[in-house]
Amino acid sequence: MKSYRKVLHFHLPARRGLVNITDEVQSAVTESGIQEGLVLVNAMNITASVFINDDESGLHHDYEVWLEKLAPEKPYQQYHHNGYEDNADAHLKRTIMGRESVVAITKGKLDFGTWEQIFYYELDGKRDKRVLIKIIGE
Amino acid sequence: MKSYRKVLHFHLPARRGLVNITDEVQSAVTESGIQEGLVLVNAMNITASVFINDDESGLHHDYEVWLEKLAPEKPYQQYHHNGYEDNADAHLKRTIMGRESVVAITKGKLDFGTWEQIFYYELDGKRDKRVLIKIIGE
Amino acid sequence: MKSYRKVLHFHLPARRGLVNITDEVQSAVTESGIQEGLVLVNAMNITASVFINDDESGLHHDYEVWLEKLAPEKPYQQYHHNGYEDNADAHLKRTIMGRESVVAITKGKLDFGTWEQIFYYELDGKRDKRVLIKIIGE
Repeated sequence: MKSYRKVLHFHLPARRGLVNITDEVQSAVTESGIQEGLVLVNAMNITASVFINDDESGLHHDYEVWLEKLAPEKPYQQYHHNGYEDNADAHLKRTIMGRESVVAITKGKLDFGTWEQIFYYELDGKRDKRVLIKIIGE
Repeated sequence: MKSYRKVLHFHLPARRGLVNITDEVQSAVTESGIQEGLVLVNAMNITASVFINDDESGLHHDYEVWLEKLAPEKPYQQYHHNGYEDNADAHLKRTIMGRESVVAITKGKLDFGTWEQIFYYELDGKRDKRVLIKIIGE
Repeated sequence: MKSYRKVLHFHLPARRGLVNITDEVQSAVTESGIQEGLVLVNAMNITASVFINDDESGLHHDYEVWLEKLAPEKPYQQYHHNGYEDNADAHLKRTIMGRESVVAITKGKLDFGTWEQIFYYELDGKRDKRVLIKIIGE
C-alpha cells in the first residue's frame, strides 16, 4: 500500500467564496502514482468546507442565499459562540456543506460522474486556511 | 491491497424516491473477496444522495416533508440555477442528505449497527443515474 | 495493509449531549500501529452523529438551538415516524450533523488542523449506543 499527502493553501479576500479544486486534487493523485485507491479531501479549518457539486455560477449564488437563510450571519449576538469572534454562522454553514469528501481513484483518475467537481467553500475568509489531501492505494 | 469497483444503475419513474441498496452493496463486497477494508458508496450525479438511516416508511415520509421545507422545489424562479433546468432544489436537498457514505468491512461483511441501511435518494428522477461502489482492503 | 477495529460505548443520561472522542480515536490509532492510512469513525446508531468541529461550549449551545430550529423535537405528532417512538427529530438532526468522519493518519497521528476535534453527538440518549472506529493503512 502506498500513501501520499499534500496540503493546499488558501487566503480569500472576502468572508465567503468558492474555489474549484478538482484539478489540484487530480494533480495530487497523479503525483502519488496511485492507480487504485481512495482520496480524502478535507478542510483543516472548522469554518470551511470541501464538497462536491456542479461548477455553475447560478447554483453557487443559490448556495449563498440558502446558507444565509438556514444559518444567518447576523445579528452576531444571536450566537453564544460570538463575542471575541463573529464566525458562529461559518461553523453552522460548514456543518450543512460538510467537512470532507472521499473520492474513488480508478486507473489513476478521480472516478467521477459527468458533473462532479470538488470545491473549497470558504465561510470565514481573509485569513490563511488549509485543505488536506490524503491518498491511499497502490 | 485489493480494490474492486462496481456501478449501480437507476432510472426512477418520479422526481423523488428512495431505494434501499444495502443488499447490492453487500453483494459487491462479497464479489470483491475483501475481508477487511473500507467501501465508499457515492452518487455519481449531483442531484442524488447516498445516505445511511432507518428503513422505515414513516421516516421516509418525514424526510420528504422536511427537505421540502428546508429547500422547496417551487417556485422555480427563486433559484438562479433554474431556467434551462428546474432542479436547483435537488442540488440543495442532496447537500443536506450527503453525497456519499463510507462503511467499514469486517470479516467480509458491512460492519453495521442494528438498524443501519444504505439508501439511494433520487431527488431529480425520470432519467438515468448511477452510484459508484469502490472497495479497498484485503 | 493492516486493519484495526474498535468500538466505543456510550450511555448518556439526557436526550442530547456532546462527547469529545478525539483522544479515544487517537488511542485506537496508536494501538493499531498504523503510521499512514485512514480512520473511519461512525455512529452505529441512526439517531447519533460523529462530526468534527471546535471544542467550544458556546458553539455547542448554538448547535442545540440551531438543530432544534431546523428539526424541532416537538410536537411529536408532526412526524409520521413517531408513535411507538418519539425520536424522528433525532434522525433528522443526525442527518444535518452527519453519520461519520474520515480522518487521515500521518506518522501515526490524526492529521488535523489546529482546532479540529472529533465529537459524538447523542440525539436520542438514555440508552446504550456505539461508535465504530475502523483503521486501514500500514
